[in-house]
Amino acid sequence: MFNAEKFINQTIESLNKEIKGKALIAFSGGIDSTVCAVLANRAIKEDLIAVHVDTGYMRKDESKNVKKLMDKLNLNYRFIDASKEYYKELKGITDPEEKRKIIGEKFIRIFEKVAKQEKIKYLVQGTIAPDWIESGGQLRDTIKSHHNVGGLPKDMNLKLVEPLRDLYKDEVREIAKALKIDCSERQSFPGPGLAVRIIGEATAERAEIIRKACFIVEDEIEKAVKNKKMSIPWQYFAVLLPIKSVGVHGDRRAYGYVISIRSVESLDAMTCNYSNIPHEILDKISTRITNTLKDKVNRVVYDITNKPPGTVEWE
Amino acid sequence: MFNAEKFINQTIESLNKEIKGKALIAFSGGIDSTVCAVLANRAIKEDLIAVHVDTGYMRKDESKNVKKLMDKLNLNYRFIDASKEYYKELKGITDPEEKRKIIGEKFIRIFEKVAKQEKIKYLVQGTIAPDWIESGGQLRDTIKSHHNVGGLPKDMNLKLVEPLRDLYKDEVREIAKALKIDCSERQSFPGPGLAVRIIGEATAERAEIIRKACFIVEDEIEKAVKNKKMSIPWQYFAVLLPIKSVGVHGDRRAYGYVISIRSVESLDAMTCNYSNIPHEILDKISTRITNTLKDKVNRVVYDITNKPPGTVEWE
Repeated sequence: MFNAEKFINQTIESLNKEIKGKALIAFSGGIDSTVCAVLANRAIKEDLIAVHVDTGYMRKDESKNVKKLMDKLNLNYRFIDASKEYYKELKGITDPEEKRKIIGEKFIRIFEKVAKQEKIKYLVQGTIAPDWIESGGQLRDTIKSHHNVGGLPKDMNLKLVEPLRDLYKDEVREIAKALKIDCSERQSFPGPGLAVRIIGEATAERAEIIRKACFIVEDEIEKAVKNKKMSIPWQYFAVLLPIKSVGVHGDRRAYGYVISIRSVESLDAMTCNYSNIPHEILDKISTRITNTLKDKVNRVVYDITNKPPGTVEWE
Repeated sequence: MFNAEKFINQTIESLNKEIKGKALIAFSGGIDSTVCAVLANRAIKEDLIAVHVDTGYMRKDESKNVKKLMDKLNLNYRFIDASKEYYKELKGITDPEEKRKIIGEKFIRIFEKVAKQEKIKYLVQGTIAPDWIESGGQLRDTIKSHHNVGGLPKDMNLKLVEPLRDLYKDEVREIAKALKIDCSERQSFPGPGLAVRIIGEATAERAEIIRKACFIVEDEIEKAVKNKKMSIPWQYFAVLLPIKSVGVHGDRRAYGYVISIRSVESLDAMTCNYSNIPHEILDKISTRITNTLKDKVNRVVYDITNKPPGTVEWE
């Protein structure tokens, strides 16, 4: 059986030996990066610098909560609000691949800047076994580019340290428990964040809309789960479609965006079924979205595509 | 009680007196225009010219069936396939109002041409009472522009004849029965046809896609109704969204259109609820659409918007 205490002690000791100088960690607030940061912080103290970038495409209150968590964990951190810069660089960009590329590259440039300023030599990453082992047998690089913001670049000349590399999620959870880390496990979230949940141009206005819509979807589904109306889906979120559809506002016709709700059950790594959310709940979500985003959104659809032929995210 | 036989005889007689020369009727194959055409044909024989225009935005087999019906009813008719011209005129047009306007005007021009060639003096229309009486108290012109292809123009200088003007739908059905007209009553269909079910540019390729998708929606819902899985909705159809969303084709990523399914229950003239179609049926429709339109469509959504704030049609 996995011994969390033993793993913690051994890892702190070996990190202490391995890291000679300052190290950087990209801190997302997820369980993997949090556990990893705490271990490295115990090993090398303030020589570990946690960096969190608010890209402007984070979920509701996400960056605020990450900041609180870094404070609570007593990490030496840099909190960088780059949202305005991101919105500016993504102005006019509609191609999904180009969007991802710009977001990833900007992320790297921010990291490079911190690394240079702080004379950093090591990069700590919370990679766990499922991140690089995939049933489909894909190459590791391909997978990482899906999950991280383009990964971190090889040409940064940082030595990569991955203390959780051989662990599975359950083991990471055991370590978190042993370390008394209280970090809520939110559903997995794509590296480029809400930007890939805005089809087409990812403007600040649209980011604000989709942030609210995603929150409503999470909130209503979690309430329904709590009230035993449905079981918790594997992933559930909203997508903004940049089509203007006609609606009724009082007596007049008005054009607004369309929000699509996506919720899936994972069967295995490669296939999913869309969730059979009761209509009662769907109706509630739809009404709350159009009521909350009155002047911006007048139509809500529910994605009823399985994977294949659809993917989980739209872009 | 309404006496169909009496109404038929009186109407034939009065049409015979009223119409001095040739008359035109726009023949859609719907129960109103069919009953109206049969009555006028009995009154003035081949002096009634039925005109059917295939705009390229008709439902699957619709124009073919209309032609068969006109043959069976022994009408003197002109069947005009204008689909290629329509696609050409709508090239590059994305604005919903402009699309409607172009479609309506083209329809009028086709009618004008026939009227001129045939030296026609009368226009017979199957207008019934609910077409001009509306609970909302709107003006007739406004309503007509919703239901007909822009209506027919006043400046055509044709005398308008509306023999069914005082009737309600049930009475029209009684007359159809008395006249032994076997015309299936399809759900109501917007004047500009499938063009308003293609958001953005209504190309020939997209018309072909949405025609197939609408047919699948009708077919699966009608099967489900027959199998007592659900009750018949008020309106049910598909809409093509011109966004390309990512999907999986074998091992590779592929971008395809999104199809939205719309199905509503009418509460009164002004408000609707979206239909609570069982997920089993939604899943079946979604899979059949992506299987049938494999290379074109990889995502299907279900519209869960009530009216208000959404309208029934999207444009």
